[in-house]
Amino acid sequence: MHEISDFLDAGDAKSAAMALAELHPSDIADLLEQADEDRRELLIALLRPQFDAEILAYLSIDLRDEVVERLEPKALAAAVAELDTDDAIDVIQDLDEDAQQSILSNLPPEARALVEEGLTYPEYSAGRLMGRQFVSVPEFWTVGGLLDYLRAAATSDKSELPEQFYDIFVVDPMHRVIGSVPLSRVLRAKRGVKLADILHEDIHRIPVTMDQEEVARLFRNYGLVSAPVVDKGGRLLGVITVDDVVDVIEEEAEADMLAMGGVGEDDLYRAVLSTARSRFRWLAFNVVTALISATVINQFTTTIAHVVALAALMPIVASMGGNAGTQALTVAVRALATKELTTSNAARVIGKEVLVGLMNGMALAGIVGGITYFWFGHSIIGLVIAGAMIINLICAGLFGGLIPFLLDRMKIDPAVASGVFLTMITDVVGFLSFLGLATLFLL
Amino acid sequence: MHEISDFLDAGDAKSAAMALAELHPSDIADLLEQADEDRRELLIALLRPQFDAEILAYLSIDLRDEVVERLEPKALAAAVAELDTDDAIDVIQDLDEDAQQSILSNLPPEARALVEEGLTYPEYSAGRLMGRQFVSVPEFWTVGGLLDYLRAAATSDKSELPEQFYDIFVVDPMHRVIGSVPLSRVLRAKRGVKLADILHEDIHRIPVTMDQEEVARLFRNYGLVSAPVVDKGGRLLGVITVDDVVDVIEEEAEADMLAMGGVGEDDLYRAVLSTARSRFRWLAFNVVTALISATVINQFTTTIAHVVALAALMPIVASMGGNAGTQALTVAVRALATKELTTSNAARVIGKEVLVGLMNGMALAGIVGGITYFWFGHSIIGLVIAGAMIINLICAGLFGGLIPFLLDRMKIDPAVASGVFLTMITDVVGFLSFLGLATLFLL
Repeated sequence: MHEISDFLDAGDAKSAAMALAELHPSDIADLLEQADEDRRELLIALLRPQFDAEILAYLSIDLRDEVVERLEPKALAAAVAELDTDDAIDVIQDLDEDAQQSILSNLPPEARALVEEGLTYPEYSAGRLMGRQFVSVPEFWTVGGLLDYLRAAATSDKSELPEQFYDIFVVDPMHRVIGSVPLSRVLRAKRGVKLADILHEDIHRIPVTMDQEEVARLFRNYGLVSAPVVDKGGRLLGVITVDDVVDVIEEEAEADMLAMGGVGEDDLYRAVLSTARSRFRWLAFNVVTALISATVINQFTTTIAHVVALAALMPIVASMGGNAGTQALTVAVRALATKELTTSNAARVIGKEVLVGLMNGMALAGIVGGITYFWFGHSIIGLVIAGAMIINLICAGLFGGLIPFLLDRMKIDPAVASGVFLTMITDVVGFLSFLGLATLFLL
Repeated sequence: MHEISDFLDAGDAKSAAMALAELHPSDIADLLEQADEDRRELLIALLRPQFDAEILAYLSIDLRDEVVERLEPKALAAAVAELDTDDAIDVIQDLDEDAQQSILSNLPPEARALVEEGLTYPEYSAGRLMGRQFVSVPEFWTVGGLLDYLRAAATSDKSELPEQFYDIFVVDPMHRVIGSVPLSRVLRAKRGVKLADILHEDIHRIPVTMDQEEVARLFRNYGLVSAPVVDKGGRLLGVITVDDVVDVIEEEAEADMLAMGGVGEDDLYRAVLSTARSRFRWLAFNVVTALISATVINQFTTTIAHVVALAALMPIVASMGGNAGTQALTVAVRALATKELTTSNAARVIGKEVLVGLMNGMALAGIVGGITYFWFGHSIIGLVIAGAMIINLICAGLFGGLIPFLLDRMKIDPAVASGVFLTMITDVVGFLSFLGLATLFLL
């Protein structure tokens, strides 16, 4: 990959194009992502004559739009038509409306029908993930019959065998899934063995509308490599393979992490203006909560004017509450995502957070109270900050666990929204308890 | 799974045990994780007679220790001996020293040797992940010969065939990997075809010392299902399959997210005291940074005593800087984890963050400055907070991008350490710029 940069630096486009042709689509996607804008334009120009649409599947969404814009609609459609239906859907679904239509209208009718049908399934559902090519055979077949069928299909021109497959699906005459046979089982069996005798019946049939997160959990929990996707009647519609699921797992984990940090997807490749705009929404929310805290503090100006040291100390209480709350919140958000936090153990988990808050609150109260006492030589201020610290850390534990749980029950993504509410609470409680106690005991 | 709770509630241990025996190990692990302590004890007692060590592989680490303690060392060793070597290593490596030794000393000599050999590879390396059972055959074999071999091996008692496999590895007489043949390719080929003619030579050989994160990236980028692990001489040592990699991907993403939230692994199942203690370290760090901010504010007590409103407003500047910085930081940490942020584009990425900071800083300056002006009816305070906001958001963008990058270059995990440094900077710069400008223009 480095040599391509070298070739381009040297202006040797021909060698660069040859080296590009040798690369795996995911490596080309990496190259495009690493490049600055000029370099990217150059690379796309080199790729254009024989563009492999699989590159798009590996690109982050913003870059995908950019690359699609730079390609001819017809050439692009031709490239997309080469993809498996599930990959084609994956590439098309995230493009903007115009780009989608321009590709769809240039696709061959058959591929277009398959893609359009796939797009009718809800976003993030099994229907969008599944491949339409699979091997399904009737129950009464033998291993020998299966082998003959596969060998014949492989040499036939109109073969509908997928490039790679891991399980043979056994279906009844209504095309309902009876079971599956892993290939390694087929290979071990003698020709005369009936598939009915070696199939696994106890397999995971994935409803076509199942959410992709749920699909990923099934694959992970049961170590699946491929699984049949079925309609309501149990009929085989498609197959999800583990490579699709690996992407889902990465995406879901990434989405949660970015959401908790207050950013949307794919931020790295967006232009400055659009990044700033998308992040601004989160900041605007936070301005509101910061103003609420300011209002709280503003109620205590008499107290602060009386003992100015309070102004220096009050952010400590608020920020330690925020930190402790974020710890509880992170654990809760993650546990909700992995379905480890449920209604059945919520009270226990949140109760534990309150206790943890109490314990760390007491520990910090001792430390910060002591430092304050030595710093300002004023024992009451030390006691006030210690008391406020304990109050705020208990609240931090309580709400750090409770907020994500409640949001989740209200079908709001806890990763996105929990942070704002939590900070508001720990700031308000922090300032209120500290300045309130100070007003009581110092004035 | 619900019925088991019902049986236990009704005191019907026998039915509960029978229902448990029907469950997949991962479901039993879920059940143990959801249960409170009494229920867990009961469940373990029911599982003990025929304990499936695979349950341990699905349990979070803290619970694993708890369960291991409640089992007899001999029964446990017998259960572990039933596992594949890679699963046995996975289970054993995270146990504490005593538990490890007690299992190892009770394992059959052969299994023990394999596990101990596995434990000699560095933690988180390919050597720990790989399975030792695989199908490797010489290059000159035909498809027919392979099928005969597999069928014979399947019926032999001393079969070393893995339960599941996805690729046949073709090796030379020195046991070096020449290539691999996916099973779906074997099935399509006629008996007379030579393996040498259908093998993929251009495969990804994984060095046994490769870090598991790197392994996961290879699997993900190239859609692998299994890959050979080789020693320095290219000789086949083992095979990594995608189900192991799925766990790695989940773990790595989870570890980063938890680290950014200031928590260690597996927090949900730890006892209160041990959770509080593990989280305290992070909080103690933050006390130091909070005290540094307090010291900064404390330099400006004269200014604050003069205009007490400043005390109410100053946390706004600091917290907005923290929020904007966290956005930049989250993107950078994630991009470092996925190797999308590298030295070649670092200047560009960080430069963009500075620009985004400038733009959102100006937008917030307008909003917060305006609100302040109307609130306190004091135009200079409005201008001071606006100026401080711009300064702090530029710093937030700069350091939010720069800190993770520098830590990564210094081989420090950016997910763990970036947050503390960033908050320190945005707090200090926030208070310093706001109170500094106020001192200049208001006194």
